[in-house]
Amino acid sequence: MIIIIKPNTKKELVSSFVAELEKTPGLQAHLVDGLHTTIIGLVGDTSKIDIDNLRTSDIVEEVKRVQEPYKNANRKFHPDDTVVDIGGIKIGGSHFQVISGPCSVECEDQICEIARRVKAADSAFLRGGAFKPRTSPYAFQGLKAEGIELLLEAKKKTGLPIVTEIMDAAHLPLFENVDVIQVGARNMQNFELLKELGHTKKPILLKRGLANTIEEFLMSAEYIMAGGNENVILCERGIRTFETATRNTFDVSAIPVLKRLSHLPVVADPSHAGGISWLVEPLALAAVAAGADGLMIEVHNNPAKALSDGKQSLTPDEFYGVMLKIKAVLAALGKSIG
Amino acid sequence: MIIIIKPNTKKELVSSFVAELEKTPGLQAHLVDGLHTTIIGLVGDTSKIDIDNLRTSDIVEEVKRVQEPYKNANRKFHPDDTVVDIGGIKIGGSHFQVISGPCSVECEDQICEIARRVKAADSAFLRGGAFKPRTSPYAFQGLKAEGIELLLEAKKKTGLPIVTEIMDAAHLPLFENVDVIQVGARNMQNFELLKELGHTKKPILLKRGLANTIEEFLMSAEYIMAGGNENVILCERGIRTFETATRNTFDVSAIPVLKRLSHLPVVADPSHAGGISWLVEPLALAAVAAGADGLMIEVHNNPAKALSDGKQSLTPDEFYGVMLKIKAVLAALGKSIG
Amino acid sequence: MIIIIKPNTKKELVSSFVAELEKTPGLQAHLVDGLHTTIIGLVGDTSKIDIDNLRTSDIVEEVKRVQEPYKNANRKFHPDDTVVDIGGIKIGGSHFQVISGPCSVECEDQICEIARRVKAADSAFLRGGAFKPRTSPYAFQGLKAEGIELLLEAKKKTGLPIVTEIMDAAHLPLFENVDVIQVGARNMQNFELLKELGHTKKPILLKRGLANTIEEFLMSAEYIMAGGNENVILCERGIRTFETATRNTFDVSAIPVLKRLSHLPVVADPSHAGGISWLVEPLALAAVAAGADGLMIEVHNNPAKALSDGKQSLTPDEFYGVMLKIKAVLAALGKSIG
Amino acid sequence: MIIIIKPNTKKELVSSFVAELEKTPGLQAHLVDGLHTTIIGLVGDTSKIDIDNLRTSDIVEEVKRVQEPYKNANRKFHPDDTVVDIGGIKIGGSHFQVISGPCSVECEDQICEIARRVKAADSAFLRGGAFKPRTSPYAFQGLKAEGIELLLEAKKKTGLPIVTEIMDAAHLPLFENVDVIQVGARNMQNFELLKELGHTKKPILLKRGLANTIEEFLMSAEYIMAGGNENVILCERGIRTFETATRNTFDVSAIPVLKRLSHLPVVADPSHAGGISWLVEPLALAAVAAGADGLMIEVHNNPAKALSDGKQSLTPDEFYGVMLKIKAVLAALGKSIG
Repeated sequence: MIIIIKPNTKKELVSSFVAELEKTPGLQAHLVDGLHTTIIGLVGDTSKIDIDNLRTSDIVEEVKRVQEPYKNANRKFHPDDTVVDIGGIKIGGSHFQVISGPCSVECEDQICEIARRVKAADSAFLRGGAFKPRTSPYAFQGLKAEGIELLLEAKKKTGLPIVTEIMDAAHLPLFENVDVIQVGARNMQNFELLKELGHTKKPILLKRGLANTIEEFLMSAEYIMAGGNENVILCERGIRTFETATRNTFDVSAIPVLKRLSHLPVVADPSHAGGISWLVEPLALAAVAAGADGLMIEVHNNPAKALSDGKQSLTPDEFYGVMLKIKAVLAALGKSIG
Repeated sequence: MIIIIKPNTKKELVSSFVAELEKTPGLQAHLVDGLHTTIIGLVGDTSKIDIDNLRTSDIVEEVKRVQEPYKNANRKFHPDDTVVDIGGIKIGGSHFQVISGPCSVECEDQICEIARRVKAADSAFLRGGAFKPRTSPYAFQGLKAEGIELLLEAKKKTGLPIVTEIMDAAHLPLFENVDVIQVGARNMQNFELLKELGHTKKPILLKRGLANTIEEFLMSAEYIMAGGNENVILCERGIRTFETATRNTFDVSAIPVLKRLSHLPVVADPSHAGGISWLVEPLALAAVAAGADGLMIEVHNNPAKALSDGKQSLTPDEFYGVMLKIKAVLAALGKSIG
Repeated sequence: MIIIIKPNTKKELVSSFVAELEKTPGLQAHLVDGLHTTIIGLVGDTSKIDIDNLRTSDIVEEVKRVQEPYKNANRKFHPDDTVVDIGGIKIGGSHFQVISGPCSVECEDQICEIARRVKAADSAFLRGGAFKPRTSPYAFQGLKAEGIELLLEAKKKTGLPIVTEIMDAAHLPLFENVDVIQVGARNMQNFELLKELGHTKKPILLKRGLANTIEEFLMSAEYIMAGGNENVILCERGIRTFETATRNTFDVSAIPVLKRLSHLPVVADPSHAGGISWLVEPLALAAVAAGADGLMIEVHNNPAKALSDGKQSLTPDEFYGVMLKIKAVLAALGKSIG
Repeated sequence: MIIIIKPNTKKELVSSFVAELEKTPGLQAHLVDGLHTTIIGLVGDTSKIDIDNLRTSDIVEEVKRVQEPYKNANRKFHPDDTVVDIGGIKIGGSHFQVISGPCSVECEDQICEIARRVKAADSAFLRGGAFKPRTSPYAFQGLKAEGIELLLEAKKKTGLPIVTEIMDAAHLPLFENVDVIQVGARNMQNFELLKELGHTKKPILLKRGLANTIEEFLMSAEYIMAGGNENVILCERGIRTFETATRNTFDVSAIPVLKRLSHLPVVADPSHAGGISWLVEPLALAAVAAGADGLMIEVHNNPAKALSDGKQSLTPDEFYGVMLKIKAVLAALGKSIG
């Protein structure tokens, strides 16, 4: 950590500030005295220092971090890829998987039919929303507990493990048999929820917030991991920018950046990123080419009648076609599904 | 609502689509047939129509809303300013109020001393964080229940009603004696929390999310109001942009825009918007000049020792000076505090 | 074009407004009268209508465009892909090409050595900056006329056509023998420059501005095409967002969106988008997978000594390796270089 | 300047790197050796160091600047406010001025009538566009040379000095009698134009680019000042964000930040920032309250018939009313017009 001292600060003030800093065990402060600028280099374990507090000192001009503020999620302290194992299905490392299904669970026929079709196309997981975060209080809010029951029914019929979103820690008991719990973009910084999920052992699929930096994204993973749950899968799903031609701007760079900074698996959601069905294929292939460990794709047997987000859903036939291309791009990179 | 039909769509398909639309009671569909484009104008109460569903129809090119998707929060249906009354202290309409206090409640001496000082400077409310949303799991998370006790103690001593943030609906019982419940920027779209708050009668201070549009902000207010709670105060606190010289970009235009679209009171938080104490005065005055109904300002008796956000806090003396200027600008506009 | 009339507007005013609109030959105005809203659907050729003017009418609430405001660049009026032919080397349609070379031309040895190396790796064009737009007036500004001479020398030795940036129309005479003239992101809306380039027959590589929408990007292409020059190549190079982990946010979705809206070839610049050399490979592959017609990649024989942007340059050996992967991904999609 | 060395770098490499750095006269490098991190503090005049080049060194992890990269525009080296004097009318320091007039000059009657009206309301300058940067090549592009003639005619009749925009350095001879030359947002980084303006003595009103940081804005001022022209007036006019309720997001914080970092006068343009006439008053007052040295406001005698940007123009009567409020807010802050 680097502390830049305000110009013309008295030497005694700097000395007593340095003495104060060195009271923290394991920290050493080195002084760099320039003509116009005095800098303090703080070395040792600075992860517990509250950078905002340092900034309020009367003699401090600016503080800059050298080390990342996350530890459990940091590749520096965990060089090998984390592989999350969900009932024998692995994701991360050399294991690439596809999660697919409808935006919302609507009825038994719908979810079971879609499950059957996506399984046939080599999707490893079934997704489906039971609790739906909707901008409008008047829009369909999901089937809730019943939706989870229907997902479990589809799992029983097809064997596909299920992924579904949680919106409140109070609902956790309903998720007992869910295989992967999803945290949506709008809850990426719902810290109370993250803390509760850190006390479970469930694999968590954590989506990046619409306007959150990669560092904040990793700090939210850190919240879960700090509680003891290391089964975190990161999901890039588009960020908010000035561009209006797409629903969000798919930040494809986030994939290689996350994989460099962290050891956690990274999947991409081209359906929410683009928001239009014809964009799913090019964005899915781009994510694969950029090194994603998996994809999350919306599939609906009748998009025009979907209760939510039909506009961005593929039909099962379209999904089958996209999967063929995904496999071809994976093969070109020496990888494969599974 | 306007529905643009894809070019070269067969007339029969358009007719049956129109017939389908008109099945909804109170809706009328008017056809505009052009050389290259066919447009359907849908008139009547369109607030319950799911625009995303319309978009998925095979014959639909684009759908554009004409009416706002919020109703309870909409000035069109409620032309007069809402005045929120908190134990006799009014905010909104011709009533301008200041909310101030530390970022976090730290101890009884701190909060009582600050309460005494801000009251002397004509602050109408005391703010203080008991539950603190922090990016890092390793940063100070607030005194929680004890923090609320200390706020109530300060209220007892000074008479100032208190404003403090809730992070989880499960904590609601602790807020029984809190005068105004704050929803933070990161929870603006925590819809489960909003729904629960809609079932209380407590005044809610709702902060705008870091990357949320004004329309989404009003939709979140609508969530609370749809539950029956009309005591919502909106708070602009800066949005996220590419600029790094300030913590956030204070969207001062949001103040007049919100007041035009909605009847709810609008306050501004210059402390979080700028993130630096010397920016509080110019941003506070700008908010007043732009027509805000109130301000939320961080004040700490010893900013350099604050457990959070000290960098942006004013000392009580600085706050007193800023209040004098606020009163001067209010007077110039024919307004006053209270 | 759709015109929404303000509520409670007198019928006579609407009628005379409609009559005024229909004075424009080829335009028809259809009235949709609702309970709360009156809408006018304007059909015919609306491309010459100034939408901002309509908005200023006292009776107009809002105006929404249905048709795109660009014509020459619009795929609707030109369904087939444009193929730009540069001395027999084709780009667009089924022709994929790579443009590579240093950020800045520095000396004859440098540019000729790099040209030789990138040609050996199947780059079809040599790029190199002679006029350099730099944020600081104190940074290296390029070799200017001498830089163009050196590029022509490298072309003579290797046969590679050259691509270099223009910063002012007054410099056009120096570009007489340049094969492709580049317009940089900062000049995307330098309309005087675009108009001048529209009067030449030179192929133009137009980069997207840092904060420009896809529609504005196509309008800038339209400026060049409106002057008679249809040889425009579009280049996505990253946009500006709140994310700071990368230099810009590479908007990979822009590639399929541009190709759907327009018939012009689209190339991507992963070097400027990411701003870091290890990001070039994943972003280049993502662009290829998303359907780009080409890539622009920075290559330097000694990045650590480059006079500009060395941080994002590949060495010739690294470039060779990336080209092998590019070819593999192209092959997986049934495409190839050339 | 602070240079962070990559972990596990050999000591000899660091030593030779330090030796290399110290070859630059006036620079001293101080080494801070930590357990995990080695930092070099570089002190002395670092303004001529190319930070990007340092970053490309094999042993460098990151480089952080401590001093601002601009010198002439920096308040540190020029603590007193710059006052720009335009024929006896001063702006900056304690001098507040209003610039007003139509977006575009349309005809003699229009510009002279508006000039007369804004003068009567105490506007010190007349603005009017002769060269108009328009997104569409099919939109009105301004009267060009004739427009400047008409502005000079209005100046002759009213005595108001004139402000008008330049789009290409080649047009400079036409601006010989123009009092203040405006550089528009889209040309903020048209470096060739800035360099040419640096060689004149004309006062320059430099508008901030739509997606440019405050630091980049000051670097563009530095381009002009580095050429010898110190008469630069900065203009905040809104930046581009995700918000669509306003044309741009008016960054009111930029006013106090610019005034703290620089000694140059800062004016605000509420007309372009908001893009709607009813937003001009609140944004103008906010700018005044935040400490602006002046305002630029669009006024048109018949906004509904304006050839450009009528939607955001005030009528002369509305302008007169806004000026009364501006004067009241100025008075509340102990300031006045002139």
